Amino acid sequence: MAFQYLTNVPLDEAREAYKEALLTEGFGAGTETVPVTGSCGRITSEPVYAAICAPHYPASAMDGIALKAGLTFGAGETTPATLTSDQFIVVDTGDPVPEGCDAVVMIEDVIRQEDGTVRLYAPAAPWQHIRQIGEDICAGEMILPSYTEISPAAIGSMIAGGVTEVSVLEKPVVGIIPTGDEIVPPTPDPAPGDILEFNSSIFSGMLDGWKAVPRTYPIVKDNKEAIREALQNALAECDIVLLNAGSSAGREDYSTEVIASLGTVLFHGIAIKPGKPAILAACSRKPVIGVPGYPVSGIIVLEQFLKPLIDCWYHTAPAPQETCTAVLSKNVVSGLKYREYVRVRMGEVGGKIMASPLGRGSGVVSSFMKADGIMEIPQGVEGYEAGSEITVRLLKKREELSRTLVAIGSHDPLLDEISDLLHASDPSLHMSSTHVGSMGGIMAVKRGETHIAGVHLLNESDGVYNTAYIKRYFPKGGVRLVECVGRKQGLMLQAGNPKNIKGIGDLTQPDVRYVNRQKGSGTRILIDYLCKKEGIETGRIYGYDREEFTHTSVAAQIASGTADAGMGIFSAAKLYDLDFLPVCMEQYDLLIPDEAWDTDLVKKLLEILKSDVFRKRLEALGGYELNHPGEVREHF
Amino acid sequence: MAFQYLTNVPLDEAREAYKEALLTEGFGAGTETVPVTGSCGRITSEPVYAAICAPHYPASAMDGIALKAGLTFGAGETTPATLTSDQFIVVDTGDPVPEGCDAVVMIEDVIRQEDGTVRLYAPAAPWQHIRQIGEDICAGEMILPSYTEISPAAIGSMIAGGVTEVSVLEKPVVGIIPTGDEIVPPTPDPAPGDILEFNSSIFSGMLDGWKAVPRTYPIVKDNKEAIREALQNALAECDIVLLNAGSSAGREDYSTEVIASLGTVLFHGIAIKPGKPAILAACSRKPVIGVPGYPVSGIIVLEQFLKPLIDCWYHTAPAPQETCTAVLSKNVVSGLKYREYVRVRMGEVGGKIMASPLGRGSGVVSSFMKADGIMEIPQGVEGYEAGSEITVRLLKKREELSRTLVAIGSHDPLLDEISDLLHASDPSLHMSSTHVGSMGGIMAVKRGETHIAGVHLLNESDGVYNTAYIKRYFPKGGVRLVECVGRKQGLMLQAGNPKNIKGIGDLTQPDVRYVNRQKGSGTRILIDYLCKKEGIETGRIYGYDREEFTHTSVAAQIASGTADAGMGIFSAAKLYDLDFLPVCMEQYDLLIPDEAWDTDLVKKLLEILKSDVFRKRLEALGGYELNHPGEVREHF
Repeated sequence: MAFQYLTNVPLDEAREAYKEALLTEGFGAGTETVPVTGSCGRITSEPVYAAICAPHYPASAMDGIALKAGLTFGAGETTPATLTSDQFIVVDTGDPVPEGCDAVVMIEDVIRQEDGTVRLYAPAAPWQHIRQIGEDICAGEMILPSYTEISPAAIGSMIAGGVTEVSVLEKPVVGIIPTGDEIVPPTPDPAPGDILEFNSSIFSGMLDGWKAVPRTYPIVKDNKEAIREALQNALAECDIVLLNAGSSAGREDYSTEVIASLGTVLFHGIAIKPGKPAILAACSRKPVIGVPGYPVSGIIVLEQFLKPLIDCWYHTAPAPQETCTAVLSKNVVSGLKYREYVRVRMGEVGGKIMASPLGRGSGVVSSFMKADGIMEIPQGVEGYEAGSEITVRLLKKREELSRTLVAIGSHDPLLDEISDLLHASDPSLHMSSTHVGSMGGIMAVKRGETHIAGVHLLNESDGVYNTAYIKRYFPKGGVRLVECVGRKQGLMLQAGNPKNIKGIGDLTQPDVRYVNRQKGSGTRILIDYLCKKEGIETGRIYGYDREEFTHTSVAAQIASGTADAGMGIFSAAKLYDLDFLPVCMEQYDLLIPDEAWDTDLVKKLLEILKSDVFRKRLEALGGYELNHPGEVREHF
Repeated sequence: MAFQYLTNVPLDEAREAYKEALLTEGFGAGTETVPVTGSCGRITSEPVYAAICAPHYPASAMDGIALKAGLTFGAGETTPATLTSDQFIVVDTGDPVPEGCDAVVMIEDVIRQEDGTVRLYAPAAPWQHIRQIGEDICAGEMILPSYTEISPAAIGSMIAGGVTEVSVLEKPVVGIIPTGDEIVPPTPDPAPGDILEFNSSIFSGMLDGWKAVPRTYPIVKDNKEAIREALQNALAECDIVLLNAGSSAGREDYSTEVIASLGTVLFHGIAIKPGKPAILAACSRKPVIGVPGYPVSGIIVLEQFLKPLIDCWYHTAPAPQETCTAVLSKNVVSGLKYREYVRVRMGEVGGKIMASPLGRGSGVVSSFMKADGIMEIPQGVEGYEAGSEITVRLLKKREELSRTLVAIGSHDPLLDEISDLLHASDPSLHMSSTHVGSMGGIMAVKRGETHIAGVHLLNESDGVYNTAYIKRYFPKGGVRLVECVGRKQGLMLQAGNPKNIKGIGDLTQPDVRYVNRQKGSGTRILIDYLCKKEGIETGRIYGYDREEFTHTSVAAQIASGTADAGMGIFSAAKLYDLDFLPVCMEQYDLLIPDEAWDTDLVKKLLEILKSDVFRKRLEALGGYELNHPGEVREHF
């Protein structure tokens, strides 16, 4: 059952060696001829030369009359030239210049006479207002070099140059074979243990963007013969094959063995994280990549190994990557043995760009969706300290970062609603929320990392929310506390309250499993306070150290039956149809540093807080009390 | 016949008023529900919330054994915990954690005993190596806000969150109606006067890139009733209609009249160039745009008026435009009455970015293909002087500019072949050539605007090419002259030489029409010299002041029958099957300033000049003599 990766090869080495090996075997695109009208975005396989000139005849460049320039020589203000009707021909823009004519006079300069003649008060220069043959493109001229992406204007140029068909590189067909006994197609109702198959959809989206053709095969069970058959079939139909999962070394991982039986495994195990168990193999000239099952690993492996092969296929240079320098918001430790890719959220606060590492689990696909950038930690580097300047590869436009409202602090589902309203009211604005609890929010404001922080911190001595904490942490002021909402806190319980929990006191009962919020969150501080007040020793509460980061995730644990109770807000309980035992009404406010106050982002936020639509959204969530949302409670 | 535009409205004013008017009429996207698996790149029409948690069950995060953590409390190096086979269950990564278990121990830390029990030398913490329900996504959480583009990772997140269908904004269907008696479908063999219909293909390519669905209708003749019928039909099937051409005011331009009969014309005539005759109209909530017939005007009108409507449809912010500062290479004069868009070629030479205006004719579609950027000259500004710092909107990646070999100088078709070989040998390298003649090339080198300049300048006194001119223009040196090719110059004549031209002396015959090269080109200097030597007065040569910029375009005029003779190189004559009367062998060399010498671009160029494949390409063109191409003749 123990496993061993064959190799732990550095990324660049593996990638280069893999590419070289494939090129030696003849990896590369075939060509096909397509109509020019349908060739937009395709890549030329050879130079395209014009077949005809454009214009292909001498054309009038104006509405006017065509004539022999010589007839007008000597014409002037006082000595007009008069042309009889057989000495000129009326032409519109684009009309051919008639045989024998060598100039066009604009209609505005033509004085028609009653008798059908025209007068001209200036001479015409030979070839004036005539688009010469080939003015745009000459027959035989190279319109496009090889290996060039065909733009809309290039299509126009080719058609103008009499080219109706063009030879382009075939698109690579990439087969995706999902494997695994536990894998099931997308469904809103999976059974426990079922793993939803979404990797093929992610990969297909990536491949579309890379001008490759994804072809997803049906899910194959963990059976050596079945996998072998599926791989053989895909190899017959595709240019590249991705065998998804089974690349690790669990009890039922057959990928290496199967691939080796049909081709050559060059590497199994690359010194990257995530993505370590990748398999790089070739069946004659066709690449076969064993892609790890976790989505984040899969995405990294496709970016690092498949994309370079597609660049190679199309003879295109790797797209330049937009990077930027950012300040790391917390320590990141990495292993020395591999290069690590860390997804980060980013925000620009007070002119400084911050990067906060997102969850590093390979299973957390939402981290890729939320990520604004990727930080690379090279092999041999132990990590970076908070405050370090790091280089981040941007996944979004740099401009978008400056237009993103950063919220770091206490969680409430209302933040998602604000995010939606903000972007809907101005599509250039975005919001990014990170849930680190109220104390985390205060610290983020202090470090200048956030525009706003949700806080709900009860001062035990006077029962007032937030102000005491803010005074303590911001003795010099520089922040505003903006009223947001009152919200109902209480114990969330399994529907029907089967354990008959009547209050905090019942949490110590032996059959009650509690699920807690993380230290530093306002809700944790509240339950700590309540227990202390009632003289309950928290060590006696089973699960008191089981920590979740949001109200919603606490509710989710209870709804799933792995816990019986947890402290949280009414809207979270309602979302999961849980029972709810109200404990108190608390004040959830927004802390905003002065440096963020005058920004468009905060102005728009305040508008939203005061809006009717915000009020309606919170009514739908339930458990909120809105008094004067958006008003400054105190400027410290 | 005289025409008048209804308006000359400033761009921004027209655009805003048009958008407002359409929104008031109800312009905007409907929604449709699509499978998540096919939703990549679509825009959400409402927030997407997770239906289930991901993971949707507590899952093992490791290959190992699942157990009750309590059984291991107290385990240590010397006091292992022993578990009997009914106290643990073997699990693989992703397996559900069995009922009653609350921790997973990695297989590496499990010591199996002969009797089927296992030993653990460390305690397990509750919930260790377990992916909690909702670790990735919690049911009810907002996965995506409204009006957000669906990324591959977002597809994964939605499927993981149990979402299988998603409501997205419909794509706008944009009808394109080409009109005009003279317009014909793409063909390599058009009759004189036929205008090839390629605008619809250009527009379709642009629309694809904007996530709109182009629908091109058959070409409609210049007939009021036919156009009206086509427009009505398109309005019934599309969300937006482009009526292509007929928006000017020539003899057969019915667009305004027809559109006005079916809806409201808001503007006819916008203060932009190109694009002035655009019509902005609406038939109830559907935009109808009268697009000028010239391709460049059409592209500008679509970018300036259609793209903002599509952004509005999708509730997306306009994409940030990459701009850069560049030095203008020559004076550009513009009218005060309009905003002008000038296409420019760009190059980075010696760290300085240069911008050279391309042909400004609206009919020159290749100018858009060749353009690296667009310079805007605001309404009310007369233009800019050479040497001014201007802002250019980039059409290519900034990085691509730095990897582009700039060639400004004398024309030869071999430059296109070098361009092709350069990009094929290294896909990150590009070449941009501008044909301004040998003297223009020398001046471009002097001004630091080019990496290389093709030159073939005969010194009359000693009959030696190039060196005398270079010494004169670069008295302080700083340039290298690199040998390129010898090439045959001569008189290109109509096939069969019907005018029986035997030499330069015959050019003055009254029935001979000459076509010349522009002043400053090496070929013009050559013909001037030859005429002088033979005592021919050039004023007596008909067409001597008819100037073309390339050998190919001179050949094209002769082939088309509008001229009988022109000076040029053998390969151009061969391309058009012309007769050729050799006059001399001349040396075509490349002038390279020292500051460009050590660049990758020039190094690769020299490699290509010395290569066999370059020699073979030139053999195919014909008329060249290769001695030591790529060798430095002299370092000045």
